[in-house]
Amino acid sequence: MIFKKNTSSIYGVHPLIEAIRSGKTIDKLFVQKGLRGPNYQEILKLVKKHNIPIHWVPTERLNHLTRKNHQGVFAFLSPIDFHRIRDLLPSLYEQGKIPLLLILDRITDVGNFGAIVRTAACTGVDAVIIPMKHAAPISADTIKASAGALFKVPICKENDLKKSYEFLKTSGIRILAATEKAEHFTYTEDFTIPTAIILGSEQDGLSVDCLRLSDQKLKLPMYGDISSLNVSVACGMILYEALRQRLLRHTDK
Amino acid sequence: MIFKKNTSSIYGVHPLIEAIRSGKTIDKLFVQKGLRGPNYQEILKLVKKHNIPIHWVPTERLNHLTRKNHQGVFAFLSPIDFHRIRDLLPSLYEQGKIPLLLILDRITDVGNFGAIVRTAACTGVDAVIIPMKHAAPISADTIKASAGALFKVPICKENDLKKSYEFLKTSGIRILAATEKAEHFTYTEDFTIPTAIILGSEQDGLSVDCLRLSDQKLKLPMYGDISSLNVSVACGMILYEALRQRLLRHTDK
Repeated sequence: MIFKKNTSSIYGVHPLIEAIRSGKTIDKLFVQKGLRGPNYQEILKLVKKHNIPIHWVPTERLNHLTRKNHQGVFAFLSPIDFHRIRDLLPSLYEQGKIPLLLILDRITDVGNFGAIVRTAACTGVDAVIIPMKHAAPISADTIKASAGALFKVPICKENDLKKSYEFLKTSGIRILAATEKAEHFTYTEDFTIPTAIILGSEQDGLSVDCLRLSDQKLKLPMYGDISSLNVSVACGMILYEALRQRLLRHTDK
Repeated sequence: MIFKKNTSSIYGVHPLIEAIRSGKTIDKLFVQKGLRGPNYQEILKLVKKHNIPIHWVPTERLNHLTRKNHQGVFAFLSPIDFHRIRDLLPSLYEQGKIPLLLILDRITDVGNFGAIVRTAACTGVDAVIIPMKHAAPISADTIKASAGALFKVPICKENDLKKSYEFLKTSGIRILAATEKAEHFTYTEDFTIPTAIILGSEQDGLSVDCLRLSDQKLKLPMYGDISSLNVSVACGMILYEALRQRLLRHTDK
């Protein structure tokens, strides 16, 4: 078998099938456009079952990824295992936690993503939710940028963020969207209840969907334009507020 | 004359003398070990007058910096002009401000320094104080890392941080040192009075001097070890707290 246990990338039809079946987490899957045959049908079935996003590419792209006989498929394995928020949230409640979640809407920069996960680990965030596409790749560089925190905070990779918002809302989580277009300041909001905070990228801000589905929009106190603040610093400020409130509530008891 | 107005580095005895006399800000000055003569005496006098730190280097180092006839001296010009806190502080009081200052104790990483200045600009910090030595160089990279904020926030470069602490204290500034070894949380401290916040590097923490001379040590609310937090994120959290308190006080009026 070409597929080895500790490799970070795999190619070839059977190694890929074996990897997925053995529970390996695929971070990125490249499949040659127009592939046909029973093996490819099997791959498509598995891929669908495990919610792996496919990047359909021309054969030249695959030849660029490996010089070996890739048989039209190439995948990067993820160094971490991903969770689903549907599976994770009930266990948080069962542990008696008041969930504090982060949702990263199209934050694709490895440095920012790593810094955010690092801060999340220091501030007791229970899970970071990212979309299947338009997210930073999870690589050795990302783990370095997170100072290893990617091994500490569960990362939930979700196919459809819109459905995740709806699931969170019906599960008693209040969704707060950080945007400079808000009227409320962070410190007027209650972070001591089950909360998810959505952060957007510095370039694109928040998507229309997440602004519409959020329960409240909030902004940071700021001189000038909040958009000039680095997203990982903004994230730190909001998580500080959450922690301040949670600690003060704890002291009041 | 070899010295040109828009150059970012200069070499040669007369260009250097002319640059300093014309008010150019020297970021780093390299002088060949063992240089003698009246011109060098003149340079030493000017350098002392303008508080420029000298790096004494062997001639090979200068030959590495430029292939031209450097005559034993080479300097990088700063893209920004530096201030002195002694000159700046009275004008802040005169403007009716309640000064909010940052002191960076041996933060030499360009990325962290740039990110901190960027956050400082967004949070209304009146000046950032750095030591003459053991500070990040102010280069085009630093300006990029600060997203241009280095042109917005006055940077004070001080020869002797210890003397600066003493000056600040006698000028009515309360000095707060951020350290995980503190007993007080940030939110129990009053940031609505004239305040200077000292931050240390992730590697070295705060110097003994600054811990001794500070009025109060404070820590951030944190899960686990605060030292695992990036210094620019920690800085953002503390400045958020200062801004929250200042805004709330303003609203109370």
